This record gives sequence, C-alpha cells and structure tokens, in this order.
Amino acid sequence: MVRFVVLYGQPEDPAAFDEHYANTHIPLVEKIPNLRRFEACKVLGTPDGGAAPYYYHAELCFDDAAALESSLASPEGQAAGADVETFATGGATVMITQG
Amino acid sequence: MVRFVVLYGQPEDPAAFDEHYANTHIPLVEKIPNLRRFEACKVLGTPDGGAAPYYYHAELCFDDAAALESSLASPEGQAAGADVETFATGGATVMITQG
Repeated sequence: MVRFVVLYGQPEDPAAFDEHYANTHIPLVEKIPNLRRFEACKVLGTPDGGAAPYYYHAELCFDDAAALESSLASPEGQAAGADVETFATGGATVMITQG
Repeated sequence: MVRFVVLYGQPEDPAAFDEHYANTHIPLVEKIPNLRRFEACKVLGTPDGGAAPYYYHAELCFDDAAALESSLASPEGQAAGADVETFATGGATVMITQG
C-alpha cells in the first residue's frame, strides 16, 4: 500500500476549516479514482498534554505508486489538490509513504 | 477510532533504525493489549520530489481514548514506549488523533 499523507497545520479559523473540510473537501477526495482507503482524523493533542503539532491528519491509500501518481494527476485528483489551497490556512505538510 | 500517531525524524543511521524497528520494535508494539490495528510505513518523499519531512510514520489504532490510555499504560505499552528512546535518534513527534 502506498499512501499520500497530509498533515494540516493549525488553521486561522478552525470552525471554517472544519466546515470546508467536511462539506467540500471530503466529497472531492472521495471522487479520486482508485482510492482504496481514505481516513481523515482530527488531532486531539499529545500524550503529555502538549500543544498538538498539527490540526488534521489525512491519509489516501492506493495499491501502488503508479496508481497514486495517476490518481492524483486525474482531473478529480487535481481538483482535490487545488481545493487544499483554499482552506489550509495553517499549511499542509505532504508526504508519500509505503508499508 | 482513536489513534496514536508517531512521526519519526530522519535517524542518524537509517540501516540501524530499520533493523531495530523491524526486529525489536514491531514485536514489542504487537504485544500491546487492545491494539486494533498497527501500521508502520516508510516515508518515500514528497510529491514535488523534496526532502522527506519524516523518516517513518506509524499508527496504533484503538477503539477509543480510554482503551488507548490503558493500553499505553500497560507493561507492554510502557516497554514499547521505552524502546523508542533506544533507536529514534532523529526524534519522534507523537500525537493522538480521532476520526
């Protein structure tokens, strides 16, 4: 499994982020072809009660690297990627993982 | 589902990290009670070919926050946590997520 992991930084307006994420971004992500699994989680905090290093954690899972590349390059993948720019006011750290 | 997410920084000796992670750390994590899912992935890089922000990405999934807390407080959870100190030479960013 190859994953596209997005770590969203703390947004300027958390309520606006939540609303956009749930009602606009998730529907766009779910249209991406060959997406095997999509999980989005809110960061609650750290085990020692410290400040959360990120605000949201999302994972998009694909069968392999070729599927990930073609899916993100598709019109649906491009639309979801472009949408991130509209609400990720705290930035987004993105990485591709395998395992 | 409540998750314990660990983002490992780039280790001083990646081969030693890999060996320890596979042969010592994973067996310790798998002994943690009430662990519903455990996934560990190596970070391959970023979509734009930039340097990977982390080296490894691990997720331990539990039914809820109470299960996570009691599992990590168990002898097996404590042993796995103590082990991290022995090999995470690049540091470990830890967060609890829900979703």
